[in-house]
Parts: sequence; structure tokens; C-alpha cells
Amino acid sequence: MSREPTSTVRLFVDRELTTGAAFELDKPQAHYLVNVMRLAVGSDLSLFNGRDGEWRATITSSSKGRVGLGLESCTREQDCGPDLWLVQAPIKSARMKTVIEKATELGVAAILPAVTQHTAVSGVNVDRLRATAIEAAEQCGRLSVPAVQNPKSLDQLIDTWPPHRCLVFCDETRAARPLIDAVREAVGQNDGGPWGLLIGPEGGFSGDEVDKLRRQPFVIPVKLGPRILRADTAAIAALSLWQAVAGDWRNGSD
Amino acid sequence: MSREPTSTVRLFVDRELTTGAAFELDKPQAHYLVNVMRLAVGSDLSLFNGRDGEWRATITSSSKGRVGLGLESCTREQDCGPDLWLVQAPIKSARMKTVIEKATELGVAAILPAVTQHTAVSGVNVDRLRATAIEAAEQCGRLSVPAVQNPKSLDQLIDTWPPHRCLVFCDETRAARPLIDAVREAVGQNDGGPWGLLIGPEGGFSGDEVDKLRRQPFVIPVKLGPRILRADTAAIAALSLWQAVAGDWRNGSD
Repeated sequence: MSREPTSTVRLFVDRELTTGAAFELDKPQAHYLVNVMRLAVGSDLSLFNGRDGEWRATITSSSKGRVGLGLESCTREQDCGPDLWLVQAPIKSARMKTVIEKATELGVAAILPAVTQHTAVSGVNVDRLRATAIEAAEQCGRLSVPAVQNPKSLDQLIDTWPPHRCLVFCDETRAARPLIDAVREAVGQNDGGPWGLLIGPEGGFSGDEVDKLRRQPFVIPVKLGPRILRADTAAIAALSLWQAVAGDWRNGSD
Repeated sequence: MSREPTSTVRLFVDRELTTGAAFELDKPQAHYLVNVMRLAVGSDLSLFNGRDGEWRATITSSSKGRVGLGLESCTREQDCGPDLWLVQAPIKSARMKTVIEKATELGVAAILPAVTQHTAVSGVNVDRLRATAIEAAEQCGRLSVPAVQNPKSLDQLIDTWPPHRCLVFCDETRAARPLIDAVREAVGQNDGGPWGLLIGPEGGFSGDEVDKLRRQPFVIPVKLGPRILRADTAAIAALSLWQAVAGDWRNGSD
């Protein structure tokens, strides 16, 4: 919480990271290093690509907007976080951006925009959401960037859902157990297994959608307290609770 | 969650709400009802004042920007949520606004801005934060608005902290137990008692601050997983976890 994002600059690069590797950054990242972060030849930074862990690199050249890097050593082994998907009905873009940023910090593996019957937002700018996810991953110290998938209809997602992946369904419309009770019980049967978490649009799910969801054997309906939460609040709250009882927030002091 | 904020307009008014009461709204609320929500004479809405429950009211007159209301009946008795304070170091205004909105939805009783040694934000617009809290309370169905206090120094807050109020301290710098474990254990000794939750600035707490906090008998240090959370994420996550193990999210299905 509330630590300076990191004293060392961290960048996500889609390059192979290996001992002795050297390459030039693309222009936006070169601009960021030189003009925003004011780094010069000889400065260190950290790189990750989602596969090869975290590496320390040094700026070896900087001229006319081009920045060359040389890799030094691997400073953290690649880890894999919990296999948790966030299925999120699109909401207004500022709040959707909040969800992507927070979901990345909270360790989701993938974000699946799901268009529901009451979804009021017409388009999803997936490229912009991916950029948000990269930025948040760089900031929060993750070694991977969650995949932001192209939107699908909720129907299609349900019909093709992997049957062994539990789907926690935040349902404010009908009786449901508190999230931590329901998830803790399910962890007994599915610890280490794959999970998903479904958050509706501001307009809520339709009755038909709720009926269909509740008929699926992989769906676990839950509730999040007595007040009406906005969609972005519900996403952040549910992800936090899931991490605390089923994810990587469970470990003791370290 | 993610339900349409409420089909009925809800307004917070600082008026006595009682059978037969009638009054005019102030201009911004009159403007909101007539020009934004397009309500006319005869329309119903809901009112709350933080003391007298929720009341159904009817628009009895509307002319030249003035709107008169007549109270019909009390539709919900006043309740009191958990006695939880959020002590939040000021952060950039958009993120501070997010914290106030989410903390209101998540049911805090009061928000106490605490200026720490690494607080980088110079001023706090308390009036604007109060307006955010009112708007969020209207939206989420609460019957009260959390008090947003004037900023104090963290030192002053610690020195005058009520000794029987547990203070959950999200400390990323040293070993600490996961929040839900530490809070659940403390609930055994303090169930129904008053609580607080402390979130630092983006720059983190200073070593001196951490030392001082950890010396206080009322402080419970906790951690929130292995990734670095932004201050606003940490606040929302910690409030959700607290509600789930010590607050009003604990109730069974309803």
C-alpha cells in the first residue's frame, strides 16, 4: 500500500530477456525514460516481459530519441499469480479504467469484458485498457500483465465457460451468502484451481441472466454487504476478498 | 452491486424529517430535481438526513427554480452502521475523491485526513470531499453521510486517539499478518467496539512514523498481499476486508 510506486523505473517490454541481451526501446518508452524520468546513459532500470522474470538493465546509449539498453542480471524469478479471471460488464470509461488498474494491482490473470443485456456502454477501447494494465503492472511490481480480452456477450461467455473454473457471481438481486463464506467453502474443493469473478454493469443483470447464471454448476452466487455498490467498487471489493481467502494474500507474515 | 443507483431519486437534506413537514429545497437540489432528473409536481422522491430514517416526499410546487416538498411517510427506520473511521493520508485529488466515494459506499462512519511526513499533497478541499460523500451516500442507499473531518497531522491523531478504538495499520514496510487474520482475532476482544483503519500516502510512512505507530497498544499492523497497492486501492481493499470479517457484511443470506 501507499509505497512510492518503486524507486527504480520498471518497464514491460515484449522482448526476450536473457544474459547479455541488448536492444533499443521503442519510441514512447525511450521518451518516457529520457524526458519524463530524466534517466541518462549509465542509469539502471528494471524490465519484465511476463515470461523471463525481472531483469536489471542499464542505459548504454541515448541519442536523438533512441535509447539502447544492455541487460545485466535476473533479479527476480518469474512467478505465476493466482489463476483468476475478472469478467466485467463494460462501464463508463473512467470507471472501467479504474477497474483495470485495480484488478491488475490485485493480481488478476485476465480481464474479460462481457456485454450484458443492461450494458449501457456501446464500445470498449481494448487497446487503451491494455495500456492501462501495462502501466499498472509496471507500477505495482507484478512480473506479468493481465490479458485484456476482446468483449464477448455474457451468453457466449457462459456457454463456453470452462466447467472446472468456479465463477463467483456478485448478485445483488436475490439471497446469496457473503463472498468470503461461500468462497472459503469452495476453496476446500478447488484450492489452486482456476477461478473467475463476475461483476455486472451499473444497470445490474436482467432476470433472465440471473436465472441462467444460477443454473450453471460452476457459478457461486455471493453478496457484498447491505449497501448498493457501484460496479467498480464491487469489482475491487470482490477481488480483495477473493485474494484474502483463496489467493496469494493468505500467506502469513513475511 | 452494479444495480441502477436507485430508481427513486434520493436526496440528503439537513432538515428535520417528520410527518407533515413541508419545505423548499435549496437551489442546487431544486435545479437537480427539475433540470437534471426532470421531475415535476406530483413526483415522489426519497429524503434522509442522517437522523430520522428515510422518508418518501412529493413535489408540491415547482416554479422559477423553487421546489416545494411535502413529506408523506417514513419508509425506513434510521440504522447505524459500523463505527469505523478511515484515517487517510491526503493523495492527489482524483484519487482522494475515489477514496471518499468508495469509503462511503463501503460504510465508514467518518473520514479523517492525516498529514504524514511523506504526504506530497499540499491542501485538502474538505468541502469538495464532503460533497462527494453526500453524493455517494445518496447513490448507495445509506441513511447517513460519513463525516469528513478537517486534516490533522498524523502525530496529533495518534496522540489523541481514543485508546479503546482499534487502529488497523496497513504497513507494507515490515512483517505483519494478513488483514483478515489479524482483524478476526481482534474482533473476539472488540466485537461491536469502535475501529479505525489507517492508509498512508503514495510515498509511504516514514520509519519514525512506523516505529511510533507500532508502539501504540491500539494499533494492529496488517498487510495486504505481495504486490504494491496504490493508496486508493489499499483503502478500498482494506475497508472491504474489514467489513467482511468485522462489519455488516458478515450477515448470512437475506
